[in-house]
Amino acid sequence: MKNISILGVTGSIGTQTLDVVRQENEEFNVIGISANTSYKKVIDIIDEFKPKYVAMMDNDSYIKVKAYCEERELDILVYEGLEGLIKISTLEEIEMVVTSVVGMIGLIPTIKAIRAKKDIALANKETLVVAGEIVIREAKENNVKILPVDSEHGAIFQCLQGNETQKINKILLTASGGPFRGKTREELTTIKAEQALKHPKWNMGKKISIDSSTLVNKGLEVIEAHYLFGVDYEDIEVVVHPQSIVHSMVEYIDGSVIAQLGSTDMKLPIQYAMNYPVRKPSVTEKLNFYTLGQLTFEKPDMDTFGCLKLAYEAGRKGGNMPAIMNGANEIAVELFLSGKIGYLQIEEILKECMETLKFIKNPTLEEVILTDKEVRKYVKNKFGI
Amino acid sequence: MKNISILGVTGSIGTQTLDVVRQENEEFNVIGISANTSYKKVIDIIDEFKPKYVAMMDNDSYIKVKAYCEERELDILVYEGLEGLIKISTLEEIEMVVTSVVGMIGLIPTIKAIRAKKDIALANKETLVVAGEIVIREAKENNVKILPVDSEHGAIFQCLQGNETQKINKILLTASGGPFRGKTREELTTIKAEQALKHPKWNMGKKISIDSSTLVNKGLEVIEAHYLFGVDYEDIEVVVHPQSIVHSMVEYIDGSVIAQLGSTDMKLPIQYAMNYPVRKPSVTEKLNFYTLGQLTFEKPDMDTFGCLKLAYEAGRKGGNMPAIMNGANEIAVELFLSGKIGYLQIEEILKECMETLKFIKNPTLEEVILTDKEVRKYVKNKFGI
Repeated sequence: MKNISILGVTGSIGTQTLDVVRQENEEFNVIGISANTSYKKVIDIIDEFKPKYVAMMDNDSYIKVKAYCEERELDILVYEGLEGLIKISTLEEIEMVVTSVVGMIGLIPTIKAIRAKKDIALANKETLVVAGEIVIREAKENNVKILPVDSEHGAIFQCLQGNETQKINKILLTASGGPFRGKTREELTTIKAEQALKHPKWNMGKKISIDSSTLVNKGLEVIEAHYLFGVDYEDIEVVVHPQSIVHSMVEYIDGSVIAQLGSTDMKLPIQYAMNYPVRKPSVTEKLNFYTLGQLTFEKPDMDTFGCLKLAYEAGRKGGNMPAIMNGANEIAVELFLSGKIGYLQIEEILKECMETLKFIKNPTLEEVILTDKEVRKYVKNKFGI
Repeated sequence: MKNISILGVTGSIGTQTLDVVRQENEEFNVIGISANTSYKKVIDIIDEFKPKYVAMMDNDSYIKVKAYCEERELDILVYEGLEGLIKISTLEEIEMVVTSVVGMIGLIPTIKAIRAKKDIALANKETLVVAGEIVIREAKENNVKILPVDSEHGAIFQCLQGNETQKINKILLTASGGPFRGKTREELTTIKAEQALKHPKWNMGKKISIDSSTLVNKGLEVIEAHYLFGVDYEDIEVVVHPQSIVHSMVEYIDGSVIAQLGSTDMKLPIQYAMNYPVRKPSVTEKLNFYTLGQLTFEKPDMDTFGCLKLAYEAGRKGGNMPAIMNGANEIAVELFLSGKIGYLQIEEILKECMETLKFIKNPTLEEVILTDKEVRKYVKNKFGI
């Protein structure tokens, strides 16, 4: 029985993590959970999973959850805000934290969890993007496992099993290509949020759906892969694979390519990370190669989807540049979703911020956080919000 | 520096093994070689690789090679026949035997090599097909590695790395489908040898080309996989994959599929087996996913290609049944290549022999060899040769 905390328990990954726990209820015990505003869902989760600790980011929601627990005299400690998130991540009785919050907010709780020697099932991309070097170093120092939860890095992680000492030629990071694959710049100018939110293959949260459509998401994954697997940027190749069956591949020095394939269901990589190194009976539909249809692969169009090129640039530059890019993107996506900017302005904002904000070659954790604040302020100022 | 012997050095796999040795001439030292009749090629190999021991199956060729070595006062011992093959397989100074002879003739030298504690890079399918249980048991007892050289089992072996203790759902053994994929029984009746020898994807010897066209080859591989990886026949699924890029796959209990992909070049699995567990720089062309084209997968047509169904039956029945099937096939292919029987008669001969020859549930090695002799005699009698 593994005691776990789940950060971002009401989101897409959090919900599916609970699905895995439901299936493997003899394996996992949900001790701590956190959410932002979705207090109703949290109450349902409390009733079903009976965690001992709950953290709510939002003050109103905190009050409602706390009231619910007190009325029923539940033996649950309810916390609030970032301090609450950190509390949930560092509980003495847990062994693993599933960090499925979206955005920069995941960074500090993840670092704190690592320092408290908790294994991390990492679904929060931003943690590695903005502070990859620090996070990986801390994980090594604390002898903590970082188990990637997203389908691509989970796939690469699986393809590396048994080959840890072998030389890698390159990582082949697959990408569905998003809903706008094949479109021209011209056609992208008029894209509205509702179009970008319709992903052809994966059912995801709003922020990631937009990131997936601009290929920023793939760019963040490139940077993530660089830190997780210690592979140079020129050896990370994005391959557009619209069917999303091959979740990523590793090409070794001998030219042999090892690939991981599976259904388009996040529960597969979640389950693998949670149970690692043991594989447990399937919680997802299996592939049927007799009815699978064709698998295709193509080069990403980085001229049309310039965010991917910018992400490579930010990664290669290193320092706080990925944090600048990531912060700019978080705000740009917010602005796009609320209808304040056009679709291609997301890319423009990234570019401008990367050219304008102060570059720091070897930032401390504090400087990374500060960079994030400054880039957000810069974009907000620019658009007068 | 690894000292090796290569059995069947002038054949398709033998020649490509020498290509790998050429590329990795600091890694391997060719000590012993064997061939059947190709004495000219053997003389070239002697000049280039300077082995210390040579065995020729054919008496005339033996005399010619011996004369060549004596004339030039070369410090080479030349042997003849099966005894010679065994000598080459058990040399004290070698660590590994590459068994790339085709057919039943590979069995005894392989067993003797295992008993002499030599690792086996196994390209000879028949060894495992006719005596899988004995060979695997002897390999375990002698603490000897059996490293599969063919592309499919090499792929499966790679897909199992780092997952040795994990539960397997099934092995997905890929098949190109051969040159007659999609044809009807009707269309197969008139097939001639020259058509069957043209394989769409792989450049192979005559016997294997015919076996590949009838899917007997895939049937032999199913049986081989059963013994090599200890997987039940119902968990070995043949998947027709005409592009021959995915060389085989393993589906684990969690529904995750690990695949090995590579160019259609036997040097890749040969090199992997020879260097295992280390991967060495590529001797083959690498895959380019941007230009690869589509990958497709389909169910094999076991009604039209009945030999595959018969192979499954022989495997499931066990005992000496795979030896009956294999022996019948070796003679049937000979008869077909010499124009004495029609294409579909290969299948008929397999079926008849499997129904007629004496079944032995737990055959000794001697009984396996005797079965092989009897089945050949039976077919030869039937066709009056």
